Amino acid sequence: MSQLARKSMDAIFSDRIHDVPRSFIREILKASLDAEMISFAGGLPNRKFFPVDELREATERVFEIHGTSCLQYSNSEGLIELRRYISERYKQKQGINIDPDHILITNGSQQALDLIAKVMINDGDQVIIEEPGYLGAIQALSLYKPRYLPVKVSDHGMDIEALETCLKQNQPKLMYTVPNFQNPAGISYSNENRAELARVVNTKHLLVIEDDPYGDLRFRGERLTSFYEMIPEHTILLGSFSKTVVPGFRLGWVAAPDRIMEKLLIAKQASDLHTSNFTQYIIYEFLKSIELDHHIELITKAYGNQCRAMLEAIDEFFPKEVVCTRPDGGMFLWGKLPEGARSMNLFERAIDKKVIFVPGEPFYTVEKESSSFRLNFSCVEEELGREGIYRLAGAINEIL
Amino acid sequence: MSQLARKSMDAIFSDRIHDVPRSFIREILKASLDAEMISFAGGLPNRKFFPVDELREATERVFEIHGTSCLQYSNSEGLIELRRYISERYKQKQGINIDPDHILITNGSQQALDLIAKVMINDGDQVIIEEPGYLGAIQALSLYKPRYLPVKVSDHGMDIEALETCLKQNQPKLMYTVPNFQNPAGISYSNENRAELARVVNTKHLLVIEDDPYGDLRFRGERLTSFYEMIPEHTILLGSFSKTVVPGFRLGWVAAPDRIMEKLLIAKQASDLHTSNFTQYIIYEFLKSIELDHHIELITKAYGNQCRAMLEAIDEFFPKEVVCTRPDGGMFLWGKLPEGARSMNLFERAIDKKVIFVPGEPFYTVEKESSSFRLNFSCVEEELGREGIYRLAGAINEIL
Repeated sequence: MSQLARKSMDAIFSDRIHDVPRSFIREILKASLDAEMISFAGGLPNRKFFPVDELREATERVFEIHGTSCLQYSNSEGLIELRRYISERYKQKQGINIDPDHILITNGSQQALDLIAKVMINDGDQVIIEEPGYLGAIQALSLYKPRYLPVKVSDHGMDIEALETCLKQNQPKLMYTVPNFQNPAGISYSNENRAELARVVNTKHLLVIEDDPYGDLRFRGERLTSFYEMIPEHTILLGSFSKTVVPGFRLGWVAAPDRIMEKLLIAKQASDLHTSNFTQYIIYEFLKSIELDHHIELITKAYGNQCRAMLEAIDEFFPKEVVCTRPDGGMFLWGKLPEGARSMNLFERAIDKKVIFVPGEPFYTVEKESSSFRLNFSCVEEELGREGIYRLAGAINEIL
Repeated sequence: MSQLARKSMDAIFSDRIHDVPRSFIREILKASLDAEMISFAGGLPNRKFFPVDELREATERVFEIHGTSCLQYSNSEGLIELRRYISERYKQKQGINIDPDHILITNGSQQALDLIAKVMINDGDQVIIEEPGYLGAIQALSLYKPRYLPVKVSDHGMDIEALETCLKQNQPKLMYTVPNFQNPAGISYSNENRAELARVVNTKHLLVIEDDPYGDLRFRGERLTSFYEMIPEHTILLGSFSKTVVPGFRLGWVAAPDRIMEKLLIAKQASDLHTSNFTQYIIYEFLKSIELDHHIELITKAYGNQCRAMLEAIDEFFPKEVVCTRPDGGMFLWGKLPEGARSMNLFERAIDKKVIFVPGEPFYTVEKESSSFRLNFSCVEEELGREGIYRLAGAINEIL
C-alpha cells in the first residue's frame, strides 16, 4: 500500500457504504455449524422439499428444446413465457390483473429492493418501514441513505394511528411492508388493516412496496387482499420462487405501474443486463410440468406442523411473561421477553444450551428494541423443535 | 392514477434515474430482426461455439453430486472452488497471485461495475473514462451521478499526456479502462502505455478499473501485462465467463484489494444476496472437465478469420478517408468517417442497404463525437462479413 495509506483509503469510498449494518445472520451461521446445535436462527426454506428430480428433468428438456438460446444474452425484462405464467397465476389465485409487461424478473426479491431504492431514493428521502422490519430490506435500502420512519406492526398489521401521525409530519416517498407472515414477526395484516392502510395511502404521494415472498406458504386461514388489488397505482408488488421452489436459482420478480417499470428496467439493465435466462427457462419448464399448488401444499403442511409443535412447546415450557406471535403461515415467529430482559443476553445463555435464534435488534432501524427475538420453524422438524424450545426455556429462566 | 398525477409522479424518482442514456443497442436489435439484414451491430459472442453438450453433462453431474445444496441459499462471495479455479488460472496464464478471498463472483462483469460504483461514487465524484468508452460501463456508473473526465484512447492505449493534464486539474477517484481489445474501439494498450499509466496512477489516490472480458480472445500477438500485476493496490480487475463460455449464466467476477473487497461484499449482499450457486456449480464442473484453452482457441480462430475477412474487404471497398482500427483480438473494430460526416446519417443509408452497425455517439460521455462507428465481427461469418462491408461501402460513398 505505497501511495494509498489506510486512512486516506477510507476517503475513496462513497458515503453510502459507511456504517451499513453488517448482517448479524452471517455471524450466527457460523455458530450453527456445531452439529449439536438446534438452530431457530436460519432463514432458509427446508431443502427436504426442493423438487430436485423435477428440476433435473426440466433442465434436460431446456437443453433439448432451447439449445443455445438459453445460454445467450437475453432481454432485461426476463423470459416472456415466465412473466405470462406469473401474470396468469395472479389472476387465478388472487383475481389480480397484471400485464406481463409490468413484470420484471429479478435475482430474487432482494434485487427488486435494490432496484426500487436505486430509482426512488435520494440521500435523506423518507421511507416508512415496519418496526420490526425485514433485515434484507434494511440492508438494501440503507445503501441509498434514506431517513427511516419506523411504524409499529403487531398482530393485526400496521399501527394506522401511528401511520397517520407520521404522515402528518413527514413526506415519505416509499413504505416497505411484508403483509403476509411478516419477516421477522410472523404476523399478517388483517383485511380491515389493509383497507385502512390503503385508504390512508391513497390520499398521499406514496408508494407501498408489498413484499410477498411467503404469501403462498399459508397453513391456516384464508388468503387476504393484496395492496396491488386495492391501490395498484400506489403499489410495487414483489414475489419470489425462493420459498416455493428453490432459492439457489435467484429468481424473483417485481410488478409495478407502467412509469415505474420503465425506470426499474433502466436500473436492471445498468445493474446486470438481465437475470440468467438459463435458470428462467428451467423454472418455466418446471412450472409447466407440475402442479405448483400440490408442491406448495407439501411445504405448508410440514411448516404448519413444525410451527404448531413449537407453539405447543412454548405454551408448555416458556414462562407466561414471554409473549409469542401465532403465525398463519411463512417461516418465522417472534417472541418478546418481559421489559428489561435483553435477547442478546439470552442468546449467550442459549448457545451454552446448544440452541440459537436471531436477537431482535437488527430488525429495528431508529430506536433499537432489545427484548425481542426471531424463531425460524421451516427447518426444524417437530421433535427437534420441541427439544429446542425446551432448551431455550431453560436459558430464559436463567436470565429472568 | 387517482392521486398521483403524471407530473408529480416524476418527483418521486431519485435524481440518479433521470436522463440515463437509454441503450441505443436495444433499438438496433429491433432492426436486426429483418432476416435480410447483415448486422455488425451486435455485441454477442457467437453461439456456434457455446459448449452445449459439455455444459449439459456438467449439469447432470451437478445434480448427481450436489443434490439439494446447489439449489439452497449460499454465501455472497461465491463458490470457493470456482474462486480457486479463477485464482489458479491467473497464476498459470499471467503469473498474477490473487487470493481466492479477494475474488467475488458477480452476475457478469456488469454487476461488478454496479457494485464498484455503489461503494465508491458520491454525487459529482470525478471518474476518468476512456473516450470512446464502453456503453455498459457508462450506463452502470451514470446511475451514481459521477462527473466524467474523458481521456482519449487510440491505437496504442490511453493518451498519457491528456491523462496527466487531467490529473493536475482534478481529483478523480476512479479510472475505467478496457486495456485488451477495447469495446468499442478494438484497440489494446501497449506494454509501454500500461507502464506509463501505472507510473502516473501510482502517485495518486486513484483506483483503476481494469475491465477484461476479452483478454482471452487474442488471435494475434502476445499477452500484455495486467495493471493488477503492476499496481495491485490501485487496481480492481474484472473478468467474465460470458465471452469464453456462455453469457446466459451471468457469471463474472471482480478481484480487488482486501479493504475494497470488504465493501464490495457488503454491496453484493445488499444487492441480491448472492449469484446463483446452481450456475456456479455447473460452470465449475464444466471447467474441471475440459481444457478451457482448447475451447478458447476454437473461438479466437474463428473471430480472427472473421475480423481479417472484414478488414480485407474494408481495404478493398472503403474510401481511403475512412480509417479503421486493426484489433488483435476481441469482438469489435472501430471506424472513423472523414471530418464532418455523421455516422447517424450513415446508419440511415445503411439500413436501406440492409446492413447495420452501432453509431459512435453513445460511447462518448461529455462531448459527443459523431463521425465514428463500431463494427462487430464475432457473429459475422467471413462471406457475410465481406458482403456486409461491401454494402456499407456503398452507403458510405452515398454520404461522402
